[in-house]
Amino acid sequence: MSKNFKFKNFVESHNFVNQVGNIAEQENHHPDISFGWGYCKVKIFTHAIKGLAESDFILAAKIDKI
Amino acid sequence: MSKNFKFKNFVESHNFVNQVGNIAEQENHHPDISFGWGYCKVKIFTHAIKGLAESDFILAAKIDKI
Repeated sequence: MSKNFKFKNFVESHNFVNQVGNIAEQENHHPDISFGWGYCKVKIFTHAIKGLAESDFILAAKIDKI
Repeated sequence: MSKNFKFKNFVESHNFVNQVGNIAEQENHHPDISFGWGYCKVKIFTHAIKGLAESDFILAAKIDKI
């Protein structure tokens, strides 16, 4: 699954990415992140099962709370 | 232009991304960055001219020095 986030500038995107990265390390589950000026896209997937696992939804929920 | 970078884990990718983000702010020129566990791809482009400008090469050189 993936979700797009919008921001006012690069610094805000970057700050969001840092928070996502910190959560990923806490959860030991790592999304694929694309970002630049004013945007961030977070993709979450469990490669081992080629699908979505509980850990994906936990990670997504924590990112949504940022 | 774009360049792929490889890393040992997510933390190293994330640290690299932070350095790229700081350089982008210093240069006031912002790449598109994709990263995840062990990788980072940096895309540099000047949308205003739909091509590459001097500032793109300066940014790329500074990122290459990280």
